[in-house]
Amino acid sequence: MASQQSVLTDLSQTLRETTGTTVVDAHAAGLHLAGNDQWSVSRRMLHEGPSDGVEVVNLCNGPLTVSILPTRGMGIWKAEYRDIPVGWNSPNRFPVHPHYVNLQSRNGLGWLDGFNELLCRCGLAFNGPPGTDEDAVSPIESEITLHGRIANTAAHHVSVSIDDSGDGTISVRGEVDETTLFGPKLRLVSTVSSVAGSNGFTIVDEITNMGAAETELQLLYHTNIGQPFLEGNAQFLCPIKEACPRDAHAAEGIDEFGRYLPPTPGYAEQAYFFDLLADDRGESLALLHNAAGDRGFSVRFDRQQLPCFTLWKCTQAEEDGYVTGLEPGINYPNFKADERRLGRVPRLAPGDTYRTSLSFEIHDSAESVSAVAGRIRDLQASAEPTIHREPVKPFCP
Amino acid sequence: MASQQSVLTDLSQTLRETTGTTVVDAHAAGLHLAGNDQWSVSRRMLHEGPSDGVEVVNLCNGPLTVSILPTRGMGIWKAEYRDIPVGWNSPNRFPVHPHYVNLQSRNGLGWLDGFNELLCRCGLAFNGPPGTDEDAVSPIESEITLHGRIANTAAHHVSVSIDDSGDGTISVRGEVDETTLFGPKLRLVSTVSSVAGSNGFTIVDEITNMGAAETELQLLYHTNIGQPFLEGNAQFLCPIKEACPRDAHAAEGIDEFGRYLPPTPGYAEQAYFFDLLADDRGESLALLHNAAGDRGFSVRFDRQQLPCFTLWKCTQAEEDGYVTGLEPGINYPNFKADERRLGRVPRLAPGDTYRTSLSFEIHDSAESVSAVAGRIRDLQASAEPTIHREPVKPFCP
Amino acid sequence: MASQQSVLTDLSQTLRETTGTTVVDAHAAGLHLAGNDQWSVSRRMLHEGPSDGVEVVNLCNGPLTVSILPTRGMGIWKAEYRDIPVGWNSPNRFPVHPHYVNLQSRNGLGWLDGFNELLCRCGLAFNGPPGTDEDAVSPIESEITLHGRIANTAAHHVSVSIDDSGDGTISVRGEVDETTLFGPKLRLVSTVSSVAGSNGFTIVDEITNMGAAETELQLLYHTNIGQPFLEGNAQFLCPIKEACPRDAHAAEGIDEFGRYLPPTPGYAEQAYFFDLLADDRGESLALLHNAAGDRGFSVRFDRQQLPCFTLWKCTQAEEDGYVTGLEPGINYPNFKADERRLGRVPRLAPGDTYRTSLSFEIHDSAESVSAVAGRIRDLQASAEPTIHREPVKPFCP
Repeated sequence: MASQQSVLTDLSQTLRETTGTTVVDAHAAGLHLAGNDQWSVSRRMLHEGPSDGVEVVNLCNGPLTVSILPTRGMGIWKAEYRDIPVGWNSPNRFPVHPHYVNLQSRNGLGWLDGFNELLCRCGLAFNGPPGTDEDAVSPIESEITLHGRIANTAAHHVSVSIDDSGDGTISVRGEVDETTLFGPKLRLVSTVSSVAGSNGFTIVDEITNMGAAETELQLLYHTNIGQPFLEGNAQFLCPIKEACPRDAHAAEGIDEFGRYLPPTPGYAEQAYFFDLLADDRGESLALLHNAAGDRGFSVRFDRQQLPCFTLWKCTQAEEDGYVTGLEPGINYPNFKADERRLGRVPRLAPGDTYRTSLSFEIHDSAESVSAVAGRIRDLQASAEPTIHREPVKPFCP
Repeated sequence: MASQQSVLTDLSQTLRETTGTTVVDAHAAGLHLAGNDQWSVSRRMLHEGPSDGVEVVNLCNGPLTVSILPTRGMGIWKAEYRDIPVGWNSPNRFPVHPHYVNLQSRNGLGWLDGFNELLCRCGLAFNGPPGTDEDAVSPIESEITLHGRIANTAAHHVSVSIDDSGDGTISVRGEVDETTLFGPKLRLVSTVSSVAGSNGFTIVDEITNMGAAETELQLLYHTNIGQPFLEGNAQFLCPIKEACPRDAHAAEGIDEFGRYLPPTPGYAEQAYFFDLLADDRGESLALLHNAAGDRGFSVRFDRQQLPCFTLWKCTQAEEDGYVTGLEPGINYPNFKADERRLGRVPRLAPGDTYRTSLSFEIHDSAESVSAVAGRIRDLQASAEPTIHREPVKPFCP
Repeated sequence: MASQQSVLTDLSQTLRETTGTTVVDAHAAGLHLAGNDQWSVSRRMLHEGPSDGVEVVNLCNGPLTVSILPTRGMGIWKAEYRDIPVGWNSPNRFPVHPHYVNLQSRNGLGWLDGFNELLCRCGLAFNGPPGTDEDAVSPIESEITLHGRIANTAAHHVSVSIDDSGDGTISVRGEVDETTLFGPKLRLVSTVSSVAGSNGFTIVDEITNMGAAETELQLLYHTNIGQPFLEGNAQFLCPIKEACPRDAHAAEGIDEFGRYLPPTPGYAEQAYFFDLLADDRGESLALLHNAAGDRGFSVRFDRQQLPCFTLWKCTQAEEDGYVTGLEPGINYPNFKADERRLGRVPRLAPGDTYRTSLSFEIHDSAESVSAVAGRIRDLQASAEPTIHREPVKPFCP
């Protein structure tokens, strides 16, 4: 007896392969970056299953590779630093083409069918839970589906630039339009950049109102981390002015909000809203680190630009999606009409641009984790945190 | 310091390039058309952003190029006559693949997310505003979304033919099926043709009931023009038997319905319904011309086939979509159940075909504009127009 | 006068061509199968119209070719045995890419827009008519659309294997994930296999709960046959323990449920639910044969795995879709909440797998048809059938 097997399609294998077509590298560009010379930018188009038509752009600075999804609104699918995977294992295992995501389905929760990124934006015209926004200006804007449209909208322009000043910086820039006749006309220009050889990357987003009328903006950076940063007794740290549980269920965990359970089948998600302290330049930050304190993931951002920070704890079983979210935002992920009433839905005048900047770092030593934790402690020293034990206004509606 | 930039994706640039793969031209066909020998038909597949998977077929007769979108139900994306662009600037800047258009979204107004054509069909089983058609034969047919499905349905057969009789005619023919089990089974066969060297093109559509039961048909040609034809003091002309404002807001503008404002931020759309006069052969027509009267766009059609003419005025800011619609139709774009009650939803017997024919011309001289305006005046001479100052039956429900 | 025609796109012609890229055959594999050496597996990607992006894998065992659609959840588009087409003519003429199917549309009946297969699965988390499942665990699971999601979900892994033991077996295996965060996490692994030179094929499906919580499963094999098996006076045969009409309309036809009308314009579908008899090994079967009794299509399956058999009679006009469905299932296609109440929605524990196996045969001689009919008669001899003349519990809610 003999047998033979041929594999026609294997999306998992495709995704394990890290490269694609090289767009530019030190060899091709003749630009030697002082920070590291093993940098490159490559692209690949996926053709299999639910990922058919999804493009991945890999920005590699040497030790760090950031995988960007222009097809999914310039979201960051995942990253890898040295051999440490940065991201989480969603039950949606593969990058999902937007055409497989019906935002209306599952009672307006269809966004979840495509959700598996390290970072995806919730917005731009709306985010938060689904429902009917009775205060919207028209039926075109009143139908709210979970977390908005931008993460399932494809970039129409993508470019790469390399700058050799200092250690050298590699950037990928994308433009995504969330526009419609008689509705919002918002353009996202996102630039993901990384210094050669560094342990981090920066996102600078500019959202412009392309229309002739004022328009509303909602934006939250759903930044999602699983193992090996998240584990039992992992810690979340941030400099707190005020903190508030999202709901009664989160209130039950208020004493422990900074500490994580191991994967826990049946765990029901908990979320906490924060008003963070910032330094003299207005910068704030947050850190997740593992139990041993030798692996961490941090985010820094301008508190003026992103005044609302949300912590999402979702430490369910690994196979259900063991994850926590560090989510700087313009708003909290309450229903849009509530956020509007609470004064957290800014309006952009025609031609105006809202700018955000966030820097992410991966820490792979106790020293590096300690340095960030120390900075958070120093900021905290300036003020006693107010921890609300129950949902209160203005955090909650 | 040195830097380097690479563009990975640029949909705007792709769309600015006018050619693609040549399907046929004088050289390839060995057919020299008397009207002009610089004709060609080319095709291209777009791969970027929201246009990924959209095919464009360019029919070029020499001075005039008509860009057809088989992927979007044989709609006419845009045209160009000599150097004059014919179309408008929708906030949806790019041809949108149907899979990015969820007709149900935005409270049934999702069709707007893909709307940017010079000409798109509203139909075939239904058009007009969204809602629940209580008089429909089944739940499969009762859910009405804005302007129907045909503009977001892809052609399964496309062919080109060249005929050298007379000045020579170039034609692109496409078949699009709007069918479903237990529901309507309508086939559109559309032929877009143009005489070599001419300033116009003709659309002949045949819609056939492929099913074994009678079925309803709604069809309106949403023909949309912006600058440089539309501008402040541009004029709309047609030979009027009766005219009627669509609603109270349109009634406010009844005295000025034929004259246009310049781009006007905040302008709220107005629509007018017409019963037009026709010549002895049954042909009627309408004209839009610029303020100086030296640029115009006209449409001629058979008033028997297309008895309902709608004028759509949408002179909002250019960045919001400054546009007017000249819309011959089988019906007015009222809610389908109302149109049915008013006797304007024809039923096709099994195997029956409804045929329409429309001719569009671009006028780039005062003489050419005057000739059409004169023809309209001559037709008007036969009857005093009845202008209703308020919405009345049978135009409005 | 001269003219010239070029075809740019012709999906019908593409689909008439039976081959694609050969993946493996006797020549390439060097494996000579005793049953037949004219076997092969080929694949092709469709690029036209509504089929753009749909992959077809043809499993050919010599006389029989089975066309599998990995892009449509490993459904069987059609088969051909010698020169006999096996399948039906849906008004949806072409394989429809899932992105053209909005399951929510048409009041939750949008699934019909893509339905044209010989065999498609209804499930996995739900099937049956649309509605709101008030007993669902969350809003993510309460929105039920017709016949579920699996038939419009693409396989992420597809492989072929050839085994030369016995007459030799050719298999195509695909994996399809129906998963979402906070919802069901079901994986289908389907293996379609056929013995070289034989008149049939087998489907073995394994559905595994990939999540950490119990989850529900619904599954029905919508197996659809038209001409030349179905015709006036064609017969349906099965070994009946109990039979029950689905509704009052089906009850009107109860005396004739096993006999078919010729194509009948205006025929309204009728469905019958069966509890079938099985042999000592638990195997049951059903047969459709033509009027002359010399062409038949049969299905065998394990009654323990698939306890609910539904017969769907839809003998409307050929152009509307003249078809009958032989539908083994875990459940009857009643509304999910009703099936749950009636105890027919199994729950899978974390990691558990539900296994089904079905064998289909095409019979092209009176002898072959008679043999199957005889086997059904023999099984029927063991028990008097109970034929309910009206809908009754527990078949109907």
